[in-house]
Amino acid sequence: MEYLEQLGQRAVAAKYELQRLTTEEKNDALEAVASALIDHAGRMLEANGRDYETARQSGMSEALLDRLKLTEERIGAMAEGLRQIAALSDPVGEVMDSFDRPNGLRIDKVRVPMGVIGIIYEARPNVTADAFGLCFKTGSAVILKGGKDAFYSNEAITQIIRETLAAEGISADAVQLIAHNDRAVTTAFMQLKQYVDVLIPRGGAGLIRAVVENSTIPVIETGTGNCHIYVDEEADPEKAVPIILNAKTQRIGVCNACESLLVHEKIAESFLPKLAEALREKHVEMRGDETVRRAIPDAAAATEEDYGTEYLDYIISMKTVGSVKEAVEHINRYGTKHSEAILTENREHAEQFLQGVDSACVYVNASTRFTDGFEFGFGAEIGISTQKLHARGPMGLKELTTYKYLIRGDGQIRQ
Amino acid sequence: MEYLEQLGQRAVAAKYELQRLTTEEKNDALEAVASALIDHAGRMLEANGRDYETARQSGMSEALLDRLKLTEERIGAMAEGLRQIAALSDPVGEVMDSFDRPNGLRIDKVRVPMGVIGIIYEARPNVTADAFGLCFKTGSAVILKGGKDAFYSNEAITQIIRETLAAEGISADAVQLIAHNDRAVTTAFMQLKQYVDVLIPRGGAGLIRAVVENSTIPVIETGTGNCHIYVDEEADPEKAVPIILNAKTQRIGVCNACESLLVHEKIAESFLPKLAEALREKHVEMRGDETVRRAIPDAAAATEEDYGTEYLDYIISMKTVGSVKEAVEHINRYGTKHSEAILTENREHAEQFLQGVDSACVYVNASTRFTDGFEFGFGAEIGISTQKLHARGPMGLKELTTYKYLIRGDGQIRQ
Repeated sequence: MEYLEQLGQRAVAAKYELQRLTTEEKNDALEAVASALIDHAGRMLEANGRDYETARQSGMSEALLDRLKLTEERIGAMAEGLRQIAALSDPVGEVMDSFDRPNGLRIDKVRVPMGVIGIIYEARPNVTADAFGLCFKTGSAVILKGGKDAFYSNEAITQIIRETLAAEGISADAVQLIAHNDRAVTTAFMQLKQYVDVLIPRGGAGLIRAVVENSTIPVIETGTGNCHIYVDEEADPEKAVPIILNAKTQRIGVCNACESLLVHEKIAESFLPKLAEALREKHVEMRGDETVRRAIPDAAAATEEDYGTEYLDYIISMKTVGSVKEAVEHINRYGTKHSEAILTENREHAEQFLQGVDSACVYVNASTRFTDGFEFGFGAEIGISTQKLHARGPMGLKELTTYKYLIRGDGQIRQ
Repeated sequence: MEYLEQLGQRAVAAKYELQRLTTEEKNDALEAVASALIDHAGRMLEANGRDYETARQSGMSEALLDRLKLTEERIGAMAEGLRQIAALSDPVGEVMDSFDRPNGLRIDKVRVPMGVIGIIYEARPNVTADAFGLCFKTGSAVILKGGKDAFYSNEAITQIIRETLAAEGISADAVQLIAHNDRAVTTAFMQLKQYVDVLIPRGGAGLIRAVVENSTIPVIETGTGNCHIYVDEEADPEKAVPIILNAKTQRIGVCNACESLLVHEKIAESFLPKLAEALREKHVEMRGDETVRRAIPDAAAATEEDYGTEYLDYIISMKTVGSVKEAVEHINRYGTKHSEAILTENREHAEQFLQGVDSACVYVNASTRFTDGFEFGFGAEIGISTQKLHARGPMGLKELTTYKYLIRGDGQIRQ
């Protein structure tokens, strides 16, 4: 606990220093860190080798080992990511609103840094550099808690960043990594409310649930995406097949991939066999209701559980519905408020879907895979928010800031 | 639990209905409810009489009894409050941003209702009508948990609102009151995450802490205000005395009242006796450090605890500091991130204070009492947020909404 107290106090001291940096000073430091990561690649690769060996010997899956592994190329991408963040415009200081009150008070609403941001993540070491870059650019100090499997990698990356900042005359405590891997420390970190302004979990559903249940710090939930595509009776099949294929298979393990398909019953028979053919080519396992299975004989039976599952795999659930309304109701019941699409040439149906679906991003005739900071034009993102407070959808730099009111008077008192 | 599940499900069903109401339909319903409250004042007064008698017999303090009490006049004010909300402009549907992407996707960021809002409050029955009005106008359903001392009053008010809505052809479940008063139900309510999008506690520090610690629903913290005024060495004493008096004594029990005064050591001796005279006239008890006590002989000694206390009473803590920097550091350490003011004629000092203080509202030469929805021109407010996520400072109608992205394409897939 004392350890965390000290971490918190150092982060708070750093945040006041970071708030005073100019955009240019921040960008210079980001460039310097990018170069340092390249220059010290050897240290990171060595540390990563230790993590990798331990993980391999303890039987980690190939997919996770791949996420854990650092290479020269991946380090290059980390550095490039920081340079991209440096190139983005700085949201801090923006006057969001200004108004004069009848009593002569002048009120300015000004965008300011969040302060201290906590990030809890799993075994991808590149998140360490990413999260630092995004928080630093927005003038906040960050406290990181990475997965224990990547501990030495994260430590090496953090150390290089800290050394570079210190050499630039900036507080190294702009980034701190929690050096303990037991769960009690992580839980205590989630309650470091006195020092930490917001906590962002990045990872799977289990991690996010643990943070939501244990944190007393305000949390931004990110990431889980049980995304739906609804093929309306007036969909254009020429557009529909490529969109569904793209949303399901362009990248499998991501939160904006399509996990569940709804089809209007009137076109089930004509459309589904065509779609099934394309999905079979990509080796996608299909699970559907009775109507679906009549149209696609090799589809398995879908259960209630299937409709609520984010597979992150070559599996798709399918269901027929009788109307846009029914599609909307299904999505609002089983979805995770991330991204959903309607495919239709009927404008009224599209509007009904756009209005009714309670998700961060609602699409007409496009792939759900576009829910992404770069695709939206925001640049690098810290995650996709699936809650309704503060930020929804892709969270770029602006969403990592807050605001305060500056009120200037000349002696006003309240009547 | 089953009871809360049902409440949640009914609120969700109502939220989809409310989202579809036009501004005019919402305003008409608010007007109808306002009239119904006046027409049925007798029912509320009778119910309030039961609450009041029970509370009086159980020894409730005069101040709390006064908060609990309903009168014809107070019911008139409740109705007037709803009419004011009807007169405010409707934030729902506002297009906050629109952009076209190079691939032809059109992205609109649109303001939408929050969905289901939970409000937990203490023994002021007028919050029942207020909270309903604000949530209803922004298209959200609300679930209320009021203090048990006001239960019959809250029940009568809720019942009248529900009857009026039903008569207007709108789902009565736009407002529901939790009918159980044991703590286990309240705690379970704080975890009704599946149905409730945001939870707002309105009340004292203890209530707010309990909600923050137990809720898995995103919380907006409101209300606690250990607000500071810093009298700079270059303050104009002619402005300073009236501002401090106003901020401390114009209304004692409110979150934007001044609780602690910082004075530059160079002017302590000349300024404090003058201020003390004015504070004595208002019967304000003064507690200060040694320098303060030399200037004000009848001031008591202030402890560390005093500097961290929101008195909500005729007491003020006082401390001398050597610089703006020291004042800022003291405030950031002991404050509650609510409202703070610097009194100075020196522009640089003012800017240093505005930038350095980490609070929702930072003032120059004005009373902290202006932190208020009406004073800011926002109209009725649900509270003053002291956290950094989503909303800071006075929360009006806009702050009770969220947004979603509507993305329109014609077959776009991700490369």
